Amino acid sequence: MSVQEPIEYRDACPQVRAVFDDIKRTRQVDDVNNFWKYLAHDPVTLKRTWESIKEIMAPGALDAVTKEMIYLAVSVTNGCAYCIASHGAAARKAGMSGQMFAELMAVVGMANETNRLANGYRVPIDAAFAR
Amino acid sequence: MSVQEPIEYRDACPQVRAVFDDIKRTRQVDDVNNFWKYLAHDPVTLKRTWESIKEIMAPGALDAVTKEMIYLAVSVTNGCAYCIASHGAAARKAGMSGQMFAELMAVVGMANETNRLANGYRVPIDAAFAR
Amino acid sequence: MSVQEPIEYRDACPQVRAVFDDIKRTRQVDDVNNFWKYLAHDPVTLKRTWESIKEIMAPGALDAVTKEMIYLAVSVTNGCAYCIASHGAAARKAGMSGQMFAELMAVVGMANETNRLANGYRVPIDAAFAR
Amino acid sequence: MSVQEPIEYRDACPQVRAVFDDIKRTRQVDDVNNFWKYLAHDPVTLKRTWESIKEIMAPGALDAVTKEMIYLAVSVTNGCAYCIASHGAAARKAGMSGQMFAELMAVVGMANETNRLANGYRVPIDAAFAR
Amino acid sequence: MSVQEPIEYRDACPQVRAVFDDIKRTRQVDDVNNFWKYLAHDPVTLKRTWESIKEIMAPGALDAVTKEMIYLAVSVTNGCAYCIASHGAAARKAGMSGQMFAELMAVVGMANETNRLANGYRVPIDAAFAR
Amino acid sequence: MSVQEPIEYRDACPQVRAVFDDIKRTRQVDDVNNFWKYLAHDPVTLKRTWESIKEIMAPGALDAVTKEMIYLAVSVTNGCAYCIASHGAAARKAGMSGQMFAELMAVVGMANETNRLANGYRVPIDAAFAR
Repeated sequence: MSVQEPIEYRDACPQVRAVFDDIKRTRQVDDVNNFWKYLAHDPVTLKRTWESIKEIMAPGALDAVTKEMIYLAVSVTNGCAYCIASHGAAARKAGMSGQMFAELMAVVGMANETNRLANGYRVPIDAAFAR
Repeated sequence: MSVQEPIEYRDACPQVRAVFDDIKRTRQVDDVNNFWKYLAHDPVTLKRTWESIKEIMAPGALDAVTKEMIYLAVSVTNGCAYCIASHGAAARKAGMSGQMFAELMAVVGMANETNRLANGYRVPIDAAFAR
Repeated sequence: MSVQEPIEYRDACPQVRAVFDDIKRTRQVDDVNNFWKYLAHDPVTLKRTWESIKEIMAPGALDAVTKEMIYLAVSVTNGCAYCIASHGAAARKAGMSGQMFAELMAVVGMANETNRLANGYRVPIDAAFAR
Repeated sequence: MSVQEPIEYRDACPQVRAVFDDIKRTRQVDDVNNFWKYLAHDPVTLKRTWESIKEIMAPGALDAVTKEMIYLAVSVTNGCAYCIASHGAAARKAGMSGQMFAELMAVVGMANETNRLANGYRVPIDAAFAR
Repeated sequence: MSVQEPIEYRDACPQVRAVFDDIKRTRQVDDVNNFWKYLAHDPVTLKRTWESIKEIMAPGALDAVTKEMIYLAVSVTNGCAYCIASHGAAARKAGMSGQMFAELMAVVGMANETNRLANGYRVPIDAAFAR
Repeated sequence: MSVQEPIEYRDACPQVRAVFDDIKRTRQVDDVNNFWKYLAHDPVTLKRTWESIKEIMAPGALDAVTKEMIYLAVSVTNGCAYCIASHGAAARKAGMSGQMFAELMAVVGMANETNRLANGYRVPIDAAFAR
């Protein structure tokens, strides 16, 4: 078993090609990202993940650029280099300007700081915010 | 030394009261949250943190509700119960509806999932996203 | 199987009592913390963990209070409420003053912030720091 | 001081060589992984870590491949590239097939997602699961 | 908008009841866990999450107890109290004995330790494990 | 918008140069690290971050090397490769010897392990450590 190699469209089975086609059509791109080419080693997970992403990232009460920025904020928090690169690109494609990115990063940095200040000072939840 | 007790306004030194006054004025509230009452044990950090938050969270290229939602997304990712409670409240106060919250949570969940799929499948960054 | 209950000294098997005795002797306390009472459900892990802690936390090039503060910094970063409480107490017992705690928290908060700024800005390691 | 260089067997002191010999004997390999060559800069930690690993990873109520898969699941969750590579190899050597890997990844991804859903929705622990 | 209250079966809309019915049928239980009652505030995410869990957790190359143990390992790593409680119960229900739990915890603890040793010692990936 | 390129002193606007000058003067170096060159894309965050670092890292109740070691402990816990490299260098420059580093790493590893043992065994906080 080797997941070392990405699965290219030309080498993919029909089940995988169907997902690749839908990604390319939905995103208006000629080829899918590496993420999908590696996930294609598990066609069931590939399909479930894509169907979920499609549903979750479609514009709704939150627009596309806001959703991509939230995705980027999580990826930056977790330090996932791949996702930071790919979702940074997706966010810019969806309309994130340099200034928006700068402000997002400032919030992400500060939130990661105050989360730990709240931890270390053992701050109890205010009654006003009780579940 | 005991950081077990929150510092209430009435017991605070002038340095701390000055910060509490500014928080209350800026946020239009009668009292500050527990977070500030515990951080007040270190007046220098209290002031620096508040000044940073004020600068970072002011509406800019991103509006206030978007900034609060990003803050919430990070807090949910890190599992900080205090921050989830307080920033959830702040986001709702800034205009986050139930539907917006639901969509934010769906994105946060999915991003935490695909970050790990990218890790485990050791996906290389696409040339198109190279630094 | 139930790990719901802590194992008290009086109910412990000889193997566990031996470890509890050593903890109490080494730390000069009358009873062990809850952590050990729950870990006692696995006497092998209990022993290995205690032997490791004894070796690691003994004063060396770093003194005891510095080691406890590092332990606290990690626990705050990870948000482990139990460890924040117990290692905060251990650090104060070893000599951590309120001012030292305040400064430690400021560093921990800032480090958690700049770690993410480095992630999000995709900063390459300087040649001077190359492995 | 420089931990930049790995310590090879031929340059190692007797204390380190003894550990390297035991690793090679236990794992039936000709040379130890980089992890041990770098950890060898601290012979005390090298020995303690190897003794712990040997004890923990020996087949017991859980067999070797299950233990390696759990190790991999944690490493993927934490995003440790070194450990993902080395424990992925160890898991495959212990019997993890491509299908087992795919299913493990699907669980790891989903668990990282639902952990955050539980955080964000502030779900209280069911009475049936109370400590 | 309030996600403060769980949605009980009797108060649920047909869309939610359909999912609750499927959970109860699949898991052979009389009522669903709190997790589903809170997620029910977003019926779309509720359905997608349940369908994913059903697909992912079904026995395959990995049996049910192994999958639940991996889920528990991730939840312990992330410190999600709710998931530790609920998946601990699920794992025991699927056949995890006290000894299996003890061994799982020992592996999870050790993996979280060596992940950081690899980080701090900046260990390069061995050529044998290159992608 | 492109944050792909670092901003060198010679290309920087006066606002950024002022911060770079202060960093170089404070740290007694000829050029700033990459971190600052990338953060310079957001001059407001650059300035706020530097001012915070200057305040936080100045020797106080904790000396400079202790503060750098805490910073390193957090960076190792989070797996931030850039920060591990740069703060490792800073700690050594401030006086961290190889033995101090080895002991710090041993504590960081152990803390990350026992944090999870406490999570998984669901250890309740001892009354003596109650808030």
